Amino acid sequence: MPRKAILAALKEADGYLSGEDLSRTLGMSRSAVWKHIVALRQEGYEIQAHTRLGYKLERASAFLIPAEVEPRLETERLGRNYHFHTSLPSSNITAKELARQGAPEGTVVLTEEQTAGRGRLGRGWYSPPGLGIYMSLILRPRIPLGQTPQVTLLASVALCKALEAVTPVRPQIKWPNDILVNGKKLCGILTELNAEMEAVNYLVVGIGINLNQQPADFPGDVANVATSAAIAGGEPVDRIRFLTTLLSFFEADYDHWLQKGFSQLREEWLARAAGIGTTVRIISGKQEWLGQAEGIDTDGALLVRNEDGELQRLISGEVSLRPEGGHGYDFGR
Amino acid sequence: MPRKAILAALKEADGYLSGEDLSRTLGMSRSAVWKHIVALRQEGYEIQAHTRLGYKLERASAFLIPAEVEPRLETERLGRNYHFHTSLPSSNITAKELARQGAPEGTVVLTEEQTAGRGRLGRGWYSPPGLGIYMSLILRPRIPLGQTPQVTLLASVALCKALEAVTPVRPQIKWPNDILVNGKKLCGILTELNAEMEAVNYLVVGIGINLNQQPADFPGDVANVATSAAIAGGEPVDRIRFLTTLLSFFEADYDHWLQKGFSQLREEWLARAAGIGTTVRIISGKQEWLGQAEGIDTDGALLVRNEDGELQRLISGEVSLRPEGGHGYDFGR
Repeated sequence: MPRKAILAALKEADGYLSGEDLSRTLGMSRSAVWKHIVALRQEGYEIQAHTRLGYKLERASAFLIPAEVEPRLETERLGRNYHFHTSLPSSNITAKELARQGAPEGTVVLTEEQTAGRGRLGRGWYSPPGLGIYMSLILRPRIPLGQTPQVTLLASVALCKALEAVTPVRPQIKWPNDILVNGKKLCGILTELNAEMEAVNYLVVGIGINLNQQPADFPGDVANVATSAAIAGGEPVDRIRFLTTLLSFFEADYDHWLQKGFSQLREEWLARAAGIGTTVRIISGKQEWLGQAEGIDTDGALLVRNEDGELQRLISGEVSLRPEGGHGYDFGR
Repeated sequence: MPRKAILAALKEADGYLSGEDLSRTLGMSRSAVWKHIVALRQEGYEIQAHTRLGYKLERASAFLIPAEVEPRLETERLGRNYHFHTSLPSSNITAKELARQGAPEGTVVLTEEQTAGRGRLGRGWYSPPGLGIYMSLILRPRIPLGQTPQVTLLASVALCKALEAVTPVRPQIKWPNDILVNGKKLCGILTELNAEMEAVNYLVVGIGINLNQQPADFPGDVANVATSAAIAGGEPVDRIRFLTTLLSFFEADYDHWLQKGFSQLREEWLARAAGIGTTVRIISGKQEWLGQAEGIDTDGALLVRNEDGELQRLISGEVSLRPEGGHGYDFGR
């Protein structure tokens, strides 16, 4: 890869490197060198070009490009097949297409910007370029279909662990699939499943997380309900470190879950869950009732005990919940 | 629909109907009448055209076209949105595309011929035109993901009931998804699932069934392992009657299952299952063992008791089974 070699030479150089030296060392014409410089700039590298002195790397790319991410991966499989885009309608759509074409487990599709990002129930997810991480992960677990919702819980736990390891933020999980800090939304997860007969064909886990946004980066009144790790933690986040840390936690937890089952994951989820053990108001169609949120079932359903003492299983998408009292977190909004 | 009116007039007429009469009654030009006659012929109707006498319907279409199928439907939802094709690569592929675009529950995609028909594990399914039924049904049940494999069992039972009602054939179900008569394959089922978080988005149930094939209609050595309802029953099958009967049984069983659960369906499945209660040889990778096939689990897994008395759950796609003794049915081939 001549582009990688040019980048390596620029990174190693102390100051300017002449185009002539570059072209001689790498055995390519000076106009070929120039074409690679232009391509590197498009990948987000700031490179000075001086007619007499040559080229100088001013700043490495701020984008999550393969050349920067891949050397820092500590995983066996997750992220090893890495598809980077500066802009996509939605990383889940692209990942599903790749999965249909046979992309291996662990494939990551990451985009600096989503133009048609989507959350649960088709709601929009605001995805400005360069500040957050918008990615989709392809998994192909050999598990019964009834266990597939556990993957979303796994993603929540891995996201929390990465936030705890890389930032000062202490997040909470809001059932079913949001991560909150100080009552505001920091991440969303959207898992999609394709199966044939009783076997999983592929899962696509879509993750959107706000990292380096400042309040002014959120449009309209979004800042009232959303936050970022930089706002909540008071310091910027190294996005590459966050991404590689997330993939490491995800892979370790995924392997443990496949081999040992749900119990440890369930404990880790409950330890970070908002509102478990409190009284909640459940809104289901025209019915409203009060109950005690007790935990989650093995398929991710919320377990709520009603006033007659019966344990009810609540499936997201069917119900909405509010904390009794009306402040703090809410469920399933 | 002028074409429907022309067809109705031809069906009612006792002998020839003049083009002039048709054009006057329906208020269209004689050349417009002619265009509709050409279209009806393409739909499989045999229509005589005589320069002096006019048009005469010799034989109704042998194709499963909407004009013939829809008046005979006895269902509320299944088949009410009916997409007919003379040829498709695969009815499941078209049905998945329609489901993604929002086609309602009960939508049927039926094709007279599949050019890329596919069975479980990507195996081919031989689909000649006009003799069998190759269809896909879109369902959108609000059920936990772990219950979705039950839909394949439901399809097997509905297919058996339709065969029992319309033909002299007495079929058996071969786990996981084949229907046999006299040890030869008559139907195949391929169910595909799309889900978002813990909710089913859509199921596509693909059904291929051999009805009016004769042994010479099967290529090569396929006749050794496949049969048709006409071969096994000794008489031709009214395909429209079979299709509408199948949809009626499917709808009734589906509604019962959604409202009352799995138990009745499980009984009906077991009553028609081949090999339950017998000794089978299980082949899983390089391992082979003998066990007693005892039944099916709620997710469609086969329950086999091994020689230590432990009940094992076998998932299709992971294992292959042969009857101990080596004749008759086999499982999971």
